[in-house]
Amino acid sequence: MEAFILGTGGMMPLPGRYLTSVLLRREGSLFLFDCGEGTQVSLRRLNLKWKKIDAIFISHTHADHVTGLPGILMLSSQVDRNEPLYIIGPPKIKHYIESNRASLDMYINYQIIVIEIDPSNPQEVFKGEGFTIQSFPLKHTKPCVGYTLIEDERPGIFYPDKALALNIPAGPLWGTLQRGEPVEFNGRIINPSEVMGPPRSGRKFSFVTDTLYHEGIAKYVKNSNLLICEGMFGEGMEEQAEEKRHMTAYQAGLVAKEAAALSTGLIHYSPRYHDKELGLLLDEARKNSKNTFLCRDRMAITIPNTD
Amino acid sequence: MEAFILGTGGMMPLPGRYLTSVLLRREGSLFLFDCGEGTQVSLRRLNLKWKKIDAIFISHTHADHVTGLPGILMLSSQVDRNEPLYIIGPPKIKHYIESNRASLDMYINYQIIVIEIDPSNPQEVFKGEGFTIQSFPLKHTKPCVGYTLIEDERPGIFYPDKALALNIPAGPLWGTLQRGEPVEFNGRIINPSEVMGPPRSGRKFSFVTDTLYHEGIAKYVKNSNLLICEGMFGEGMEEQAEEKRHMTAYQAGLVAKEAAALSTGLIHYSPRYHDKELGLLLDEARKNSKNTFLCRDRMAITIPNTD
Repeated sequence: MEAFILGTGGMMPLPGRYLTSVLLRREGSLFLFDCGEGTQVSLRRLNLKWKKIDAIFISHTHADHVTGLPGILMLSSQVDRNEPLYIIGPPKIKHYIESNRASLDMYINYQIIVIEIDPSNPQEVFKGEGFTIQSFPLKHTKPCVGYTLIEDERPGIFYPDKALALNIPAGPLWGTLQRGEPVEFNGRIINPSEVMGPPRSGRKFSFVTDTLYHEGIAKYVKNSNLLICEGMFGEGMEEQAEEKRHMTAYQAGLVAKEAAALSTGLIHYSPRYHDKELGLLLDEARKNSKNTFLCRDRMAITIPNTD
Repeated sequence: MEAFILGTGGMMPLPGRYLTSVLLRREGSLFLFDCGEGTQVSLRRLNLKWKKIDAIFISHTHADHVTGLPGILMLSSQVDRNEPLYIIGPPKIKHYIESNRASLDMYINYQIIVIEIDPSNPQEVFKGEGFTIQSFPLKHTKPCVGYTLIEDERPGIFYPDKALALNIPAGPLWGTLQRGEPVEFNGRIINPSEVMGPPRSGRKFSFVTDTLYHEGIAKYVKNSNLLICEGMFGEGMEEQAEEKRHMTAYQAGLVAKEAAALSTGLIHYSPRYHDKELGLLLDEARKNSKNTFLCRDRMAITIPNTD
């Protein structure tokens, strides 16, 4: 699983800093989180094969998180696809898509399924082979949600020595056990637990932006392998952050700490900060959570299993 | 008067090539022609004071010509303005603006006046101090118009020697004559024509994109000092141009020739052409009109008076 940071800016795109957007690639599937003006250019600069995005998750319907959608939807018509494209977001996302399709007469040769979610309650919004994606409430100036992709548990580690000690020969029986199914051998039922360790947790990717800090966030992104989290403002800007309902970098670090995230990338920087000043935001966040880094445009981050 | 080329691309923004858009500056007023995804970034890169655009002229409501509007409208709220911002375009532009304002809850602290024009007939769409802007019909896959800014005539050249020959002393009387008003001197009425040459024509700027070539275009852009004209495709792509209702560079040159444009800049290049290949388009256009050049992103072009 890999996250590609398409943009790190808040409010407006800047030369060299596109609007906050993350593309997640998992076993050939592509999921896009937020899509502001210019996202298609950033995607193109990454030089990925990206035109078959499976689903797009929108945090909220402010312009800087959605106005790249028309371009992405039209470019997605340049490849053949039988699968629908899902667009998931809070109320108004359907109105946004439908009214833009109506006024722009977009050429789209595939099915778009827009799913409006209840932004006040956590819920499963997408289910794929081996994972689910959930939304959870954030607190912004308009309905806004975070998202977390949670992989299913994986079978435990297989111990060949234990299997050999039970005289089970290497071969198809091992594979059956490794998939978590019991086998019959020499008239006896062997359960996977006899040759394998406990189930291992899957990975977790979380995306949190445009919100006041609140203690509730951490539980939804608990133990994320990678948490992408808004850290819009630095020290001295706490009031402005609260007024505009955004998080400071310090607060992003707090969420990371409370969630015990393995790794946290700051994102959605205020345009008031030049690239060279972002180190100050990182310092703030690291007061709370050491394993925090600055997302940069076009950074690719692998999210490996940890066991 | 100066034209700033904000982008030269057709269909989709590319790294280094924004979507077709031109900012025209005339005596402190700013007029924007088309506004696709990314236009605000291109404007920012030009480092102009641009947040007080007087009017935006939209050729047609395809995504690549309008989806930069939400960003521009929001950024325009960052300066104080008492004047309204005019947005002028074919039908559906009002629906586009209003539905996006509704779904995106844009913060806008000034008045926006959207004027939908009849795209099938030429008409005056904007009148300012010393100039008018007219729209005229183009032939695209949806209602589309071109625009031309026409300055009023200027008074003719004032000849001091003629004034002196009539014994009119240098001073306020000269100024009155220069403004085109008669004066009384020594009991005799002096008409401006006695001391001045014939009225001189103002400048003309024209913007033509997303259309089939047709002979009707030339009359509307006749004698343009600067004609910005779509030259989307090169040789061998005539059929595709016709099918998608676009002009080839050869045809752009034909319009330039028929209109006797003083200078013509090609624009709205197909993404199929790399920057290095654009010279081929220029060669095609120059078969018809020598004084043709390639618009490039962030080019600034002054439009001087010629007499």
